[in-house]
Amino acid sequence: MQRKETLYLKIAKIIEEQIQNETLLLGDKLPSIRSVQKLHNVSINTAKQAYLELESRSLIESRPKTGYYVSKTSQRKLALPSVTAIADAGKGKTPEDLISKVYDTIAKPDVTQFALGLPGRNFLPLAKLNKGVIKAIRSRSDSGTDLEPVQGSEHLRREIAKWSLVLEGKVTEDDLVITSGAMNAIYHALMAVTKPGDSVAIESPAYFGILQAIKLLGLKAVELPTHPVYGIDLDALKKVLPAISACCFVTNFNNPMGFQMPDENKKELVRLITAYNVPLIEDDIYGNLYFGAERPKPCKFYDEAGLVLWAGSVSKTLAPGYRVGWIAPGQFKDKIIRQKLVQTVCNPSLYSDVIADFLEHGRYDHHLRMFRNKLYANYLQFQRAVETYFPDNTKISQPKGGFMLWLELDKRICTEDLYDAAGAMNINFAPGRMFSQHDQYNNCMRLNYAMEWNDRAEEGLQKLGKLVKNSI
Amino acid sequence: MQRKETLYLKIAKIIEEQIQNETLLLGDKLPSIRSVQKLHNVSINTAKQAYLELESRSLIESRPKTGYYVSKTSQRKLALPSVTAIADAGKGKTPEDLISKVYDTIAKPDVTQFALGLPGRNFLPLAKLNKGVIKAIRSRSDSGTDLEPVQGSEHLRREIAKWSLVLEGKVTEDDLVITSGAMNAIYHALMAVTKPGDSVAIESPAYFGILQAIKLLGLKAVELPTHPVYGIDLDALKKVLPAISACCFVTNFNNPMGFQMPDENKKELVRLITAYNVPLIEDDIYGNLYFGAERPKPCKFYDEAGLVLWAGSVSKTLAPGYRVGWIAPGQFKDKIIRQKLVQTVCNPSLYSDVIADFLEHGRYDHHLRMFRNKLYANYLQFQRAVETYFPDNTKISQPKGGFMLWLELDKRICTEDLYDAAGAMNINFAPGRMFSQHDQYNNCMRLNYAMEWNDRAEEGLQKLGKLVKNSI
Repeated sequence: MQRKETLYLKIAKIIEEQIQNETLLLGDKLPSIRSVQKLHNVSINTAKQAYLELESRSLIESRPKTGYYVSKTSQRKLALPSVTAIADAGKGKTPEDLISKVYDTIAKPDVTQFALGLPGRNFLPLAKLNKGVIKAIRSRSDSGTDLEPVQGSEHLRREIAKWSLVLEGKVTEDDLVITSGAMNAIYHALMAVTKPGDSVAIESPAYFGILQAIKLLGLKAVELPTHPVYGIDLDALKKVLPAISACCFVTNFNNPMGFQMPDENKKELVRLITAYNVPLIEDDIYGNLYFGAERPKPCKFYDEAGLVLWAGSVSKTLAPGYRVGWIAPGQFKDKIIRQKLVQTVCNPSLYSDVIADFLEHGRYDHHLRMFRNKLYANYLQFQRAVETYFPDNTKISQPKGGFMLWLELDKRICTEDLYDAAGAMNINFAPGRMFSQHDQYNNCMRLNYAMEWNDRAEEGLQKLGKLVKNSI
Repeated sequence: MQRKETLYLKIAKIIEEQIQNETLLLGDKLPSIRSVQKLHNVSINTAKQAYLELESRSLIESRPKTGYYVSKTSQRKLALPSVTAIADAGKGKTPEDLISKVYDTIAKPDVTQFALGLPGRNFLPLAKLNKGVIKAIRSRSDSGTDLEPVQGSEHLRREIAKWSLVLEGKVTEDDLVITSGAMNAIYHALMAVTKPGDSVAIESPAYFGILQAIKLLGLKAVELPTHPVYGIDLDALKKVLPAISACCFVTNFNNPMGFQMPDENKKELVRLITAYNVPLIEDDIYGNLYFGAERPKPCKFYDEAGLVLWAGSVSKTLAPGYRVGWIAPGQFKDKIIRQKLVQTVCNPSLYSDVIADFLEHGRYDHHLRMFRNKLYANYLQFQRAVETYFPDNTKISQPKGGFMLWLELDKRICTEDLYDAAGAMNINFAPGRMFSQHDQYNNCMRLNYAMEWNDRAEEGLQKLGKLVKNSI
C-alpha cells in the first residue's frame, strides 16, 4: 500500500508542476487515465488515484463523459481541511446541550439557518406535494387510518427498489424496510447489529446524529482519521476491525465533509468488512445530490454477504417533515422488522402513498435534477463568499455533492463561543464540537448551503466572516 | 390490609346472600355507600370495596349519578377468569413468532379479525378525517415538509392538554411530548427510566407489546398477579418494589383483561411508587372508552412527584394508521425529547394538524360518544355469543370499557394450536401465550370486539366456539 501511495503522489506532483509552470493552462484537457497509465507504467488504479488527488486539491476537475481538465478553481484560494489525529477520550463536556440548542432554532423563521441539514423551501416542489397528498387521501377508502404492514407499504418499497437504478437491481422491494426517516433507519441498524458495550467505527468528524445514537444505545464510538476527499483511512480501519461490531459511514457526500469515497475504496471497504464479518451501516441520504456526471455507487452495490445495511430517505431532498426513510438491511431484515413492530408498529400510510406516487411517475427524478443544479450554483456562491469574507487561513472542504461545507478556522478560534455571538445576530451554524465525542474540532464549523441564495444569505456569510476575523 | 380485605368481603357476602335469597330483586336499588358505611360501622373505602367486589362478580351494577342496582347480568352464566399464580421463569419457546404471525394478518381483508387491538372502520369518522387532511394541507404553506419541534407540534400539545379534562389541568402543553403512537411512548418511557438488566413490574396477563419492549431493551419483566376486576395485586407489588426500576401498567380498561383499577388502588399505587421512588409508566390509551358514567382518573392525576409517565394516543379510537400518540413524562421529559431527536427527529406535521383540529373543534369528543355506545352494544353481543357458543366452563372477563375480552378455556385446550385451526377458517384471535413471558395462559385467548357487529362476526364466534368444544 505504501508503495502504491507514493507512486500516485509522484504522478500527481508531476502534473501539479505542469500546471504551476503553465505547461498545462487553465481549461486544458488532461491526458486520459489510460494514457497516464501507459506513460508512467502504473496500474489503472494508481493513475486514477493521481487524478483524484489533483481533483481533491481543486487543481483539476472531471467533466461528465469528456475527461479531466485543468480546473477553473485551480486558483482556489483556501486550503482543504486537515486530516485530524483522533484525540484521546477526554473528559470534556458532552455536546448534547449544544445539539439541543441548535435544534431549538428549527421553528425560528428570523434565524438565517446555516446550521441544520435541511433544504430550504425554495428547493422543494411544494405545489406538487400538495397535489400528491390530496390525490392520496382521495384514492384511499380508509382515510389513512389502516395500519400499514410493519415492513412498510408494498407500493412504496416497490417504487424505491425500481428507482434505485444505481444498485442495478440488487435490492428488491422485499429487501427494504420503511423507517421514520434515515436517522430512524440508522438507529434500528445499530440496534440490530450490536449489543450494549460494543464498539462502532465512525468517521471523524462524524455526523452528530450517529454519535448520539451510538451513545443512546450504550455503544462506544471509535473515530477514525478521515480524509477530506477520500473518506476514512482504510489502514486505520483495518487495525480496529477485529475489535469492533459495526461500521457506520456516510460514504457519499459525507456529512459534514462532503467527500465521495472513491469506488476503489468502497470495494476495499466491503472486502474488509466481509473478511472480518463486521456489518457496515451505510448512510446514503445525500447520494442523489451529486455534482458530477452520475450517481455514485454505494458500498451496498459491492455487498455479496448481506453485511451492508443501506439507509436512505427523502428528508434531504424532498420532504423533511414527512419522515419517510428506508433501509435495505441485508441479513438483518427480520430483526429490524421486529424492532420496528415494538418501537412504532408501522409508518403513517398516507405519506407512503405520496412518496410512492412521486417516484412512480418520475416526479422525484425530475425534481432531483432541478435540485442538483440549484445546489451546485449555491455551493459556488458559498465558496466564493467564504473566500471573500473569511480570513485567508480558513480551510474549506470541497464537496462533490450534498449540501454541507466544512470550515476549519484558525486554531485560536472556538466556534462554540462564536455560536452565541452569531446567534445574537440571528445567524446559525453547526459548531465543530458537535461532530466528535472528543474535545476537538473546536475551531471548525459546518455550513448548510441548501438554502435560497439571496442578499440575506450573502450578508449572513459576510457577518459570520467578520465575526471570525474579529475573534482572532 | 388483611383485616380490611376480610371486612369488605364479609359485607359483600351479606349482600350476595340477599340477592340469592331474593331479599334484593333484579333491578332493586341498593343502599347508598354511606348507608353501608354506617350500617356496618366501616370506613367509606371498605363499603366501596364491597360494592366493587359485587360489581366485579356482575351481581350489581352502578348507574351514572343514581347509585347501585341489582344487576341485570346477575344471571351471568360464565365465571370470571382466575388470578394466575405466576409461573417460574421457564425455558419454553418465546412468543415472537406467534406475534409476527398475528401481525402478518393485518392487511388480509378476508380474515375475521378478532386478534389485533384495532377498531373496525365502521367505528371511525372517515369522511371527517378526509376533510381534516385536506383542510390541513391547504392551510399550510410548506405542504408539511417543515420539521416539527422535536417535542411535537405546539398546537397539538395544547389541544391534548385542553382536552384532557380528566387531569383537571395537571398536565399542560409544556408537559407533553408527541410520539409515534402510544407503543412508541412506552418504548421511550422504558428507555428513559431504566438501564439494561433492570427489572420492570407488569401485569399478568400483560399486553405483549410491553413484554416485547422490555425484552428489546434488555430488561427483565416481573409479572405480578392481576385480578380480573381490580388489576395488579398491590401487596405483591409492594414486595418487589425495592428490586425494580419501573412499573408499566394499563390501568384503565386493561389490555387484555378489561378491568378498571379502582381509584383507591390507583391512589395507593401512586403512594407506593412515590415512597420507593420507582417511576410508573401508565398506558392509558383505552381510558376514554368507558362504559360507566365518566372517564376514570389515571394514576397521573394523583402524581405529585412527576414519577408517573402517562401515555395516550388516538390509535385505539380514531386513526390507528396516523401513528399519533403522546406522553406526559413528568421528571423524564428532557430525556425523552433527546431520545426522540436521536430516534426519529420529529413526527410528521400534517397529522398533528389534523388531530389538533379534531380536538379543538369538539369533533373528537363527539366521535368518542358514538364510539362508546357502539362499543358497549358490541360488548353485550360478544358476551351473549360467547355464552351461547362456547363451552359452559369458559371463563370470561368483565371489561368496564375498552375493547378487549379475555377468555379462559378448559385447561386441556391449547389456544396456540387452536390459532392455526381457526386461521384455516380465516378467523383470527390472540392466543393467551402472547401475554406472558412464561409458559402460561395457553388455555386463554383475547378477542377484540371493536368491529362491525354483523352476521360474519356472529358466525366467526360460532365457529370459534365450536372449535373450542371440539378440542376438548
